[in-house]
Amino acid sequence: MTMRALSPTDSAFLWMETRNQPMHVAGLNIYTPPHGSGTHFVHDLMQRWSKELKALPPFNLRPVLRMGLWYWEEDQEFELDYHLRHVALPQPGRIRELLSMVSRVHGNLMDRNRPLWEAYVIEGLPGGRFATYIKIHHALIDGVTGAKMMANSLALSADEDKPPMWAQNHQRSHPTARKNQQAPGVLEQLSALAKAGRELLPGVGSGIADMARSGLEETAAAMPFQAPPSAFNVEISGSRRFAAQSYSLARLKRIGEAAGATVNDVTLAICASALRAHLLRENALPKKPLVAMVPVSLHGETSEGGNQVSVLLANLATHIEDPLKRLQRIVQGTTEAKNRLSSMPRLQKMAHGITSISPMGFGLVVGTAKTHPQFNVVISNVPGPRDTLYLNGARLDEVYPVSIATHYLALNITIQGYGDKLGFGYTACRRSVPALQRMLDYTEHGIEELETALGLTTKAATVRKSKAAVTAAPPKDKKPRAAKTATPAKKATKTRKAVKA
Amino acid sequence: MTMRALSPTDSAFLWMETRNQPMHVAGLNIYTPPHGSGTHFVHDLMQRWSKELKALPPFNLRPVLRMGLWYWEEDQEFELDYHLRHVALPQPGRIRELLSMVSRVHGNLMDRNRPLWEAYVIEGLPGGRFATYIKIHHALIDGVTGAKMMANSLALSADEDKPPMWAQNHQRSHPTARKNQQAPGVLEQLSALAKAGRELLPGVGSGIADMARSGLEETAAAMPFQAPPSAFNVEISGSRRFAAQSYSLARLKRIGEAAGATVNDVTLAICASALRAHLLRENALPKKPLVAMVPVSLHGETSEGGNQVSVLLANLATHIEDPLKRLQRIVQGTTEAKNRLSSMPRLQKMAHGITSISPMGFGLVVGTAKTHPQFNVVISNVPGPRDTLYLNGARLDEVYPVSIATHYLALNITIQGYGDKLGFGYTACRRSVPALQRMLDYTEHGIEELETALGLTTKAATVRKSKAAVTAAPPKDKKPRAAKTATPAKKATKTRKAVKA
Repeated sequence: MTMRALSPTDSAFLWMETRNQPMHVAGLNIYTPPHGSGTHFVHDLMQRWSKELKALPPFNLRPVLRMGLWYWEEDQEFELDYHLRHVALPQPGRIRELLSMVSRVHGNLMDRNRPLWEAYVIEGLPGGRFATYIKIHHALIDGVTGAKMMANSLALSADEDKPPMWAQNHQRSHPTARKNQQAPGVLEQLSALAKAGRELLPGVGSGIADMARSGLEETAAAMPFQAPPSAFNVEISGSRRFAAQSYSLARLKRIGEAAGATVNDVTLAICASALRAHLLRENALPKKPLVAMVPVSLHGETSEGGNQVSVLLANLATHIEDPLKRLQRIVQGTTEAKNRLSSMPRLQKMAHGITSISPMGFGLVVGTAKTHPQFNVVISNVPGPRDTLYLNGARLDEVYPVSIATHYLALNITIQGYGDKLGFGYTACRRSVPALQRMLDYTEHGIEELETALGLTTKAATVRKSKAAVTAAPPKDKKPRAAKTATPAKKATKTRKAVKA
Repeated sequence: MTMRALSPTDSAFLWMETRNQPMHVAGLNIYTPPHGSGTHFVHDLMQRWSKELKALPPFNLRPVLRMGLWYWEEDQEFELDYHLRHVALPQPGRIRELLSMVSRVHGNLMDRNRPLWEAYVIEGLPGGRFATYIKIHHALIDGVTGAKMMANSLALSADEDKPPMWAQNHQRSHPTARKNQQAPGVLEQLSALAKAGRELLPGVGSGIADMARSGLEETAAAMPFQAPPSAFNVEISGSRRFAAQSYSLARLKRIGEAAGATVNDVTLAICASALRAHLLRENALPKKPLVAMVPVSLHGETSEGGNQVSVLLANLATHIEDPLKRLQRIVQGTTEAKNRLSSMPRLQKMAHGITSISPMGFGLVVGTAKTHPQFNVVISNVPGPRDTLYLNGARLDEVYPVSIATHYLALNITIQGYGDKLGFGYTACRRSVPALQRMLDYTEHGIEELETALGLTTKAATVRKSKAAVTAAPPKDKKPRAAKTATPAKKATKTRKAVKA
């Protein structure tokens, strides 16, 4: 394989990475093994996976720096044993211990001498359940592509086995696939622009910065607000905290229907409620509303892989106490932003996105981020699979995205759908965002207050919150392979329902 | 607490740290809990330790950079939960899984926004045994001080409980203690020298470099050899491999007595044998003998804490096939080197050490390290406690030092004594030193070939090798608290002896 240059966007994730600001994303999946397989399942899985010694693109690519530019090259000494890691939770192996482990591991940089991914198989959850935490550098993959790749690597049936993610053919989505395509992609066009402007800002695509600056100015001019300074917009440390919980998609849909809002808007509204509650408790709620940066995938518009994201900025109306009025204000804002975005040409959308989503762009364009942030927090909604998925017969129960905190953006909320659930992942600097776990309760409260305001409380009681600590029911009414009797997970669900009843 | 400047040596470990070259050391201890305490022991230990929320110096100190100099300051937001980490091995929890975990964790940088230490309590070894892996930045502590601190933090009796390391008073040995002493220490003197020369090489003690250069030249002139280029003297990656095994001190003493060599010389000789075997297998044995850098502690000469180390360079005679002749050549070389070192004034010894042990000094002075390395490998012999030690009643069985690999020094061998054992810890860049585990067999073979050459094989059979995987007997004939019957560890030893008999 020949070396292949990274696009400016992808390169930015390598350039801007520091020990305080790792630039990888991850997915945390929780599985129930087939009934009767017991603790052998993970052992057998590891045995099988350990034999898949060959990685296919992009899982065999490592970054190399040549003449100031980043390239992907094949790792000729690929060592699976380094990337595939069998670990265990200490007893009692609750979600608490799992999140504690993920918090720790997510703060660690990856070895740049190797392909930038690590796959953890985590045993020790109660009832034989296990988890995978798969970490991939953002230079290699964006969140949407990662979620798709995860879904594709799993099976739609409990009877089907697939090779592990790194041994599957992802040619269509990995970054080197572009060379086989006929027309130059959007990233190639941007790359050419960037090259033209490189003298101005060595090592960085300044042509992009110029394009995007005009884009952002336009956006800013069109926006009736500016993000206030907030406790989330500070320099961060190298340690992370991760909190996660699943919520019922049906509940959010019901709220949306009753309030005339999309699920995305409802998601933003309950995040806004949680952020407001958190800042109120810290006595640090700005008088002006927080602004969220919401990545918008352009994958629908192109057939390209890699990082293809634009953004919209959403007024979270955190200054409004009334939850329904807050939701309405959010709907109004996102509608305006979407109209603006859809009128942009695609190239400008991309540039607009690049400068906003990458901290490079952020730092370059905004400059005075600390005192005049363009936005306060990233809230990202990643589409996920609706069907129940299986890993060699083990049923995938829960899916949580783990994302990136950066300087001046100490908190990231990423939400990924799976079946009838939305998995909320809160990734934050452990030092500057205290008591992140409380955000889970605040989020739940945000749903409840909207249900109350809309008179949905009676209906909602039947589809109550499903906390990560007890969530275990399958997304659809499918049974895992060989499941003859109720799994421990199902028992837990039944017990909880009984308590609520 | 006021801020306190780091000495130039200590600062060097912060300056030279990169993602490929972390600068922390660690100790891996393996314990047998008191009989009958079962798996509750680790749980109870974590409960107790989790309450020790306050860290005393140096465990409460974080580094801050001011005007180009590093200082220690107290972490006002000290968060024990970040530093104290309860983890578990996946089943079957062999030494293999333990070393795999340590290899992984040792490659991770620490968060510089916090005190530079992490303490892992590792459950899941067979028979209820557990391990601790305690990682401390070399800027905070040197290996000898660390070993002393570890020993002091444990009890001499199974009935005595002590607070955990970070909650104990280490005033005499931590770096800020110096301010209370009356005469300026050696490091203060060197620091003053360094300040005088700072203009020349900003941020670095160039006065020291000047001093040491003359020292090294003198040493080089006196040495009849120069280190050859070797496979260990290459740029390294950010991933580590750690291999460890214990050997009987009595065996090494017997060899030393028979050959007229010190235990240190015998240690060097068996390392030389292992290195020779490794390089022969890789078809990369230089024709000229490898040179080891052997740190020599100056703690005996001063009452100071911090990093106080000089070095001697030892010809490992790896070009000599005959094991006895090889040992004799090593003895000859170290005797000469020790004579030279003992005739140096203390300040020059220190300077000599600083330039050699710190990669800064190494890089500054040697310059052309890759083609003309001053030495090929670091072999460090750290004195350890002779008495059996206990952690809240759990008996300390094995002690292994985990050290630092740097660019052009891809392998470090550190040996720490405990009771009648020597714990060998091999720390290496995982990429440039392949198949590190084989070094354990080669080391064992190195002992055996000397025993054979010296006609000690019959005697030696009664004190056979004790591999880490099965080593479990207490260093002396003391019983752990409440041990009424044979512990699983003792059973294992008996079984092994029975097999050998």
